[in-house]
Amino acid sequence: MAHIKVPEGVPGIRSLVMFRPETGKHLYDLAQVLLRGPSPLSPAERELIAAYVSSRNKCVFCTESHAAAARELYNDQRDIVDSAVRGEPSPKLSAKMKALLNIAGKVQQNGKLVSDDNVAEARKHGANDRDIHDTVLIAATFSMFNRYVDGLASLTPTDPREYESMGRRLASIGYSLPSQQTQ
Amino acid sequence: MAHIKVPEGVPGIRSLVMFRPETGKHLYDLAQVLLRGPSPLSPAERELIAAYVSSRNKCVFCTESHAAAARELYNDQRDIVDSAVRGEPSPKLSAKMKALLNIAGKVQQNGKLVSDDNVAEARKHGANDRDIHDTVLIAATFSMFNRYVDGLASLTPTDPREYESMGRRLASIGYSLPSQQTQ
Repeated sequence: MAHIKVPEGVPGIRSLVMFRPETGKHLYDLAQVLLRGPSPLSPAERELIAAYVSSRNKCVFCTESHAAAARELYNDQRDIVDSAVRGEPSPKLSAKMKALLNIAGKVQQNGKLVSDDNVAEARKHGANDRDIHDTVLIAATFSMFNRYVDGLASLTPTDPREYESMGRRLASIGYSLPSQQTQ
Repeated sequence: MAHIKVPEGVPGIRSLVMFRPETGKHLYDLAQVLLRGPSPLSPAERELIAAYVSSRNKCVFCTESHAAAARELYNDQRDIVDSAVRGEPSPKLSAKMKALLNIAGKVQQNGKLVSDDNVAEARKHGANDRDIHDTVLIAATFSMFNRYVDGLASLTPTDPREYESMGRRLASIGYSLPSQQTQ
């Protein structure tokens, strides 16, 4: 049971933004621009970073929902997502994405752990300032979402079909407040 | 030097939101409603939680700027802030605020560490759902800001007077984008 009174049966962050839509609005707006707005990283790559960070924080709700979204977006390369959430970047990933996932994993622990060498490695494989910025901000943002969802013990569904349906919605519609019928 | 090209001489998160105002806007809007909008916690108490979490994440820029804001807001009880950022909640703090800082410290590590007992202790001393929600979301949000600021190695001023001036600005004006002349 959640630590505070939220709408019954509503999972994860959705229940929390219904409790407090004034902050929820900005959280969803941030997720929408960061994960779906213009970026050199594809929505699939950004959802992969989100799922990877969430798996390292052991936030089941965020891992499963964003892994499901990433699987939808990677389409016939879903095993890339399965590997990432097991903490084993797939050999199918580009060298650039491997270097960026490495940076995301550092940020998940503490921002200070990102070294000049980590950034140089990403640049060597084609990452630019925006790739690096977006990777760090996605990793930081999910370090927030994971703590919000788990810190208030919000509902974590156990039926994999619920996450598949969330993944399809996130892949096709993106992020908007629950009153608009999304996650 | 920052890991990406940001405006020279501009400190901390301000330089990052100038690099990417589309995400920066939502980060500042979130900070404004969360730290200054309606809440059972005073702006001083909310800045104290922000500074406490930032100190535990060893983010110097966020610790010093939000401790400065909290000192302005606590006015003649500035030593409460000094104690919190040293990791020693002041005996002057209410039992409710001590219990909420304890919850914030758990969230800073991992949201799952917040136990029913931690929440019951806060409720015993008068905390309601909104106190608990806002505490968890502030701690989660600063776990993001700290990682964003340090993960991109943004500029951290060393002159204490710079933070005093930021603290006065944050206490009086709050959070709005740098183009509007605030942090």
